[in-house]
Amino acid sequence: MRAFDIIRRKRDGLVLDSSEIDAFVAAATSGAWPDYQLSAMLMAIRLRGMTAEETACLTRAMVRSGVQLDWPGLPGAKADKHSTGGVGDKTSLVLVPLVAACGVMVPMISGRGLGHTGGTLDKLEAIPGFRVGLSLSEFREALAKVGCAMIGQTAEIAPADRKLYALRDVTATVDSIPLISASIMSKKIAEGISALVMDVKCGRGAFMKDRNDARKLAESLVAIGRANGVRTEALLTSMDAPLGRAVGNSLEVIEALETLKGRGPADLEALSISLAARMLRLSEAAANDKESERMIRATLASGRGLEKFRQMIEQQGGDPRIVDDFKRLPVAPYRATLQAERSGVVSELDAELAGRASMILGAGRERAEDTVDPAVGVMVQAKPGDRVQAGSPIVELHYRDASRLDAARALLRNACRIEDEAPAQLPLILETIP
Amino acid sequence: MRAFDIIRRKRDGLVLDSSEIDAFVAAATSGAWPDYQLSAMLMAIRLRGMTAEETACLTRAMVRSGVQLDWPGLPGAKADKHSTGGVGDKTSLVLVPLVAACGVMVPMISGRGLGHTGGTLDKLEAIPGFRVGLSLSEFREALAKVGCAMIGQTAEIAPADRKLYALRDVTATVDSIPLISASIMSKKIAEGISALVMDVKCGRGAFMKDRNDARKLAESLVAIGRANGVRTEALLTSMDAPLGRAVGNSLEVIEALETLKGRGPADLEALSISLAARMLRLSEAAANDKESERMIRATLASGRGLEKFRQMIEQQGGDPRIVDDFKRLPVAPYRATLQAERSGVVSELDAELAGRASMILGAGRERAEDTVDPAVGVMVQAKPGDRVQAGSPIVELHYRDASRLDAARALLRNACRIEDEAPAQLPLILETIP
Repeated sequence: MRAFDIIRRKRDGLVLDSSEIDAFVAAATSGAWPDYQLSAMLMAIRLRGMTAEETACLTRAMVRSGVQLDWPGLPGAKADKHSTGGVGDKTSLVLVPLVAACGVMVPMISGRGLGHTGGTLDKLEAIPGFRVGLSLSEFREALAKVGCAMIGQTAEIAPADRKLYALRDVTATVDSIPLISASIMSKKIAEGISALVMDVKCGRGAFMKDRNDARKLAESLVAIGRANGVRTEALLTSMDAPLGRAVGNSLEVIEALETLKGRGPADLEALSISLAARMLRLSEAAANDKESERMIRATLASGRGLEKFRQMIEQQGGDPRIVDDFKRLPVAPYRATLQAERSGVVSELDAELAGRASMILGAGRERAEDTVDPAVGVMVQAKPGDRVQAGSPIVELHYRDASRLDAARALLRNACRIEDEAPAQLPLILETIP
Repeated sequence: MRAFDIIRRKRDGLVLDSSEIDAFVAAATSGAWPDYQLSAMLMAIRLRGMTAEETACLTRAMVRSGVQLDWPGLPGAKADKHSTGGVGDKTSLVLVPLVAACGVMVPMISGRGLGHTGGTLDKLEAIPGFRVGLSLSEFREALAKVGCAMIGQTAEIAPADRKLYALRDVTATVDSIPLISASIMSKKIAEGISALVMDVKCGRGAFMKDRNDARKLAESLVAIGRANGVRTEALLTSMDAPLGRAVGNSLEVIEALETLKGRGPADLEALSISLAARMLRLSEAAANDKESERMIRATLASGRGLEKFRQMIEQQGGDPRIVDDFKRLPVAPYRATLQAERSGVVSELDAELAGRASMILGAGRERAEDTVDPAVGVMVQAKPGDRVQAGSPIVELHYRDASRLDAARALLRNACRIEDEAPAQLPLILETIP
């Protein structure tokens, strides 16, 4: 199968068959096609698209490019959740222990933050000693002992995705629904799970700004999961404003712990419970959403979720005392406050700008090779819908380097709008893709 | 200017400005963009297209990537002709000496054949000793002394085109009108000519099978020429059947010489005169087409064209005795004949298949790195419209390697159709793009 002919067929908008897609992915993995042919192919896919069948096939080929986990000696349901990336989204830290405490194993492989969006691995690494770089045998051991484990992508999982993503990143071919879907789903399917809930973010702070695009992505993800034998559902959730109040790694760990203690922000708690309940139901640990939600709420109320988180921290080398003593987490040396310029109701707190402000303070990465400061970030004091007085605090900035403060403050100033009346707030969960 | 942003803008179908196009071409020349970004950009251009203005700008940038010839001490009009590639098209060998003999200089830079189409350089190299690889100073000297010279592309001319063409060739991005146009025109504009006639082939044996596509290409070429100060016109000419009777390098040189002696096939003579007359008129060596055609016909009839060809051969190191003694040209050791299977009228002689048959015999290249055999090829004995008897010769094959004969014969058998009645023949010159 010649590279040229496969590229030409996709260039002409034809539907590729599985042997052609397999040849493309195998060549990306082995290096048999030079990068310039891979990138021409990626641009052709970006502009010509792929059918649901082609995308499922691409995903399968990417899974097969590496190790697909299985769990001999570990019977029972395994579920996972994936979010397309938001600001202040620490739901994984809340729901992983809750679901595991209900008896469904969660072998989660997560990513790092980039640009204005945060990443679960960065948050976990704010916990002193916590190791996200477990080997596959350590991952297996952690899952057997605790029932959940959260690690980073290993070299063995979907190497074709790593190769193709690196090229997409520099050739303006990232924002393609088939390519995004295959990239996400190949890594999830390789986990050897039976159930998957996708949280597709939509809005100002999301990768998908447009609801129709977000819905298309969600449908694509669900179709791929099912075509590969994983029970998959998706929620479309709003990412116009940060989720919860904390944006920044250490701050988000604290907020997740507070949520597991029953004292979290309402939006974060509600979304975490919704996602966790779906994971249970898709894993057939509960007969329906009502029952699964009841189970999750009971687990949360009993403190068994918090206990599970503590076990997971300990298993992965972290300091479990942080659960009760937040001062053991990294703390930024300085704080500054952004105040309301007028009285009224907060009508908008742009998640992308808030995420970017946090990134500028050092909590996130402009480029993949940047390092993050676990301590810094922003705390939202007044969320959209909150009434404020002129001069009252809207956002608190936790910072280390004063030279970055002005730029972050300017972004936050632009992020926040105060009006006389509160506009109707969109629900957090916009749609369910069953 | 970041590569990523320029690629992204073209990917989104936006019109690039000259600084963006200049950056792309400069990076292709210097190697500042890696090949994978160049090829993603080429695929985006292939699928999104370019406006006439963008294409003119791309051409200009490609010209500036290398040396633009000028001709100090050589005043007077300079004209050239370019064909988009056909089968049996040896018009350059006929018209270059005719135009030069009329006092308009022709500094022609030509290409080699690829696939089923022939190339002027390969034909010239059938002449023993003929050097197409003149240096630029030898080129200048030849033009000063003879008034015409025919050479191959040098490393100094449009290096960006060489780089981009090599990538296009392996990424299925050759067949893009803006990219084709810029590639052709950058090399022509770099010749420092004031007039250019384009022969855009259209039909079975042409790169453009479809007349609308051919017209679009012709219009694009003319627009670029004018935007760059070169008086340019294009003819759309039929390439359904081979031009003339000879297909193969030595055979075509003989046919060109016969034409310069006034004994050439009617179609070859007519097209050569038409193109040459336009070169004269665009160079203002004649007031109108009628006068310029009269000049060309007179030059042909007087033998001054033939004499000029002899001078050019001598100047470029070739053996001028071939003009009078065809036996001094390479001759294939064997001949075979394809006979008519029935009586009737030849209704079709597929140029692509005939070209491919000649290539298989060794006259052309499958790949750019192949070498050609100057002696072999095919001679058409019955052209479309000719009446034949069952068993009479249709095509004569001039071959060296008998193991290739069957494949060539099979292609020719398929190329040729004989019917009871002759269908109406299309004119050779389909359209003029003024």
